[in-house]
Amino acid sequence: MGEFDLIDRYFKRPLRHAPASRALLGPGDDCALLAPAAGMQLAVSSDMLVEGRHFLSTVDPTRLGHKALAVNLSDLAACGARPLAFTLALALPRVDERWLAGFSEGLFALADAHGCELVGGDTTAGPLNICITVFGEVPAGTALLRSGARAGDDLWASGTLGDARLALEVFRGRLALDAAGFDAARLRMEAPTPRVALGQALRGIATSAVDISDGLLGDLGHVLRASGVGARIDVAAALALLAHGAQRLDRALALACVLAGGDDYELAFTAPATARAAVEAAGRAAQVAVTRIGTIEAPPGVRLLEADGRPLARRFASFDHFAR
Amino acid sequence: MGEFDLIDRYFKRPLRHAPASRALLGPGDDCALLAPAAGMQLAVSSDMLVEGRHFLSTVDPTRLGHKALAVNLSDLAACGARPLAFTLALALPRVDERWLAGFSEGLFALADAHGCELVGGDTTAGPLNICITVFGEVPAGTALLRSGARAGDDLWASGTLGDARLALEVFRGRLALDAAGFDAARLRMEAPTPRVALGQALRGIATSAVDISDGLLGDLGHVLRASGVGARIDVAAALALLAHGAQRLDRALALACVLAGGDDYELAFTAPATARAAVEAAGRAAQVAVTRIGTIEAPPGVRLLEADGRPLARRFASFDHFAR
Repeated sequence: MGEFDLIDRYFKRPLRHAPASRALLGPGDDCALLAPAAGMQLAVSSDMLVEGRHFLSTVDPTRLGHKALAVNLSDLAACGARPLAFTLALALPRVDERWLAGFSEGLFALADAHGCELVGGDTTAGPLNICITVFGEVPAGTALLRSGARAGDDLWASGTLGDARLALEVFRGRLALDAAGFDAARLRMEAPTPRVALGQALRGIATSAVDISDGLLGDLGHVLRASGVGARIDVAAALALLAHGAQRLDRALALACVLAGGDDYELAFTAPATARAAVEAAGRAAQVAVTRIGTIEAPPGVRLLEADGRPLARRFASFDHFAR
Repeated sequence: MGEFDLIDRYFKRPLRHAPASRALLGPGDDCALLAPAAGMQLAVSSDMLVEGRHFLSTVDPTRLGHKALAVNLSDLAACGARPLAFTLALALPRVDERWLAGFSEGLFALADAHGCELVGGDTTAGPLNICITVFGEVPAGTALLRSGARAGDDLWASGTLGDARLALEVFRGRLALDAAGFDAARLRMEAPTPRVALGQALRGIATSAVDISDGLLGDLGHVLRASGVGARIDVAAALALLAHGAQRLDRALALACVLAGGDDYELAFTAPATARAAVEAAGRAAQVAVTRIGTIEAPPGVRLLEADGRPLARRFASFDHFAR
């Protein structure tokens, strides 16, 4: 099968031209054409997934197709943008039709769930590499940014944290979980749920947001630096976000999973204390838990506080692709 | 050096916020924000470059930075769009500061020449892979498409064709060129010139356009199929587009270079015969040669005709990344 047959068979579908569609021209021309609605800004994000770095070579291709788009939708969620369209660039070591069928199935199932159309891309031979660029729209001036956190704001996190890291520890042979716990943690690692509805529901409520992809402390650090503030984190509240098997875990490992696990694709966000009811309503509307885990403070840096008010001294390294 | 230091050092620059800038928020948030002007559509294209496939491992990183953006700008040119912004996703086997300095220098020199801002992206460890997604704007309804060619239209090509393939033949040890001829051909292979000004000048004149990246016959084939037409190509006119060393080449090789060479990044386009003066004026305005090389005809397929009217029977394979 050649490059163009491959694209035709697995990645070309008629554009839906639904009323909400902003894609005028899809795969098959030199460019896709998008027409954002009047008064809308376009939010754009690119993520590249490399075998052995972002996923294991043994991963189910359907889950990988899901995850490749999910990590991009998570960036749109962190801006409060509504997904519109995406491009897919794919380097494949060989044409494996079973893999392609599974990958495109997982990709399109998530794309359809979010009304996000594949509008273009590229296919080439090479070491397995998946690069998606996603486009969303957000009413002008309402995007959630990293720079809006203010001293006194509450610090919130969505969903659960650390499950993906737990699954990775099992894969690495450093941890045993029961079958149900491992399956649940593995699903969170391999098929994360981007918090797209929550991000949109938080527009006008949250003062800043970031998606948690490299671990809570690392990604929160981007918000704190961009906003010129610091934060206090309630360690007990954060630990309660570890859903699977947490009760039987070594505490140091549980802390590492929750605070610096990576691959969570939850949102960390800030909002004024006066907005607590609004944040909780947004969580209910988006059908995802939202939990207060701390407070934004003026002094830079992060302070981790135990239930009795003592500071937790441990340091946690955020994920860095070039760290040795 | 870590991932974020690397981005800061080589890829983060203040957004220019020039009057024409449509980028509101650049690298450093979850998404970039773009605001196309009223009445404009956004043209989007993604290209992925893989070492050993799209470039040799020995290539000068400055030229590679240029080429990675140039092949994307060439897609915008084929749509008649004005470049606005791009995202860069980069997988690097290691942090090589000399390479990064050269790559970013070549990339930004071309970006600045076209007023195209880097607004976001991703950096990861992995086999060398460069994925750029480029954004341009085009007045609504005026984009040059592949589907507009009509029987009777002239078939045109910009610039010169086949030089990149000549250089590749030298690298492969199948051909010898004198030093000046090789340098010129190699420059065309390693640092192609996207025909951005020509594409915009052809809006309202050309009926269809495509950029020639996989060879003239292959890319023209996309136009013919999308338009439901065929074409007659004047072999002598096409051969005259081979700029470097053509006079001393074997004729079969010269034909292969011009008709199926690949990596040309020129435009093939169609226009009514009544528009010849307008096409030539567009070429002059864009400072690039435009040459009539054939005619669009109703019967499907391509007919290659010698100067005496005899058909050329040879078949030429277009470049296919998965062909064996």
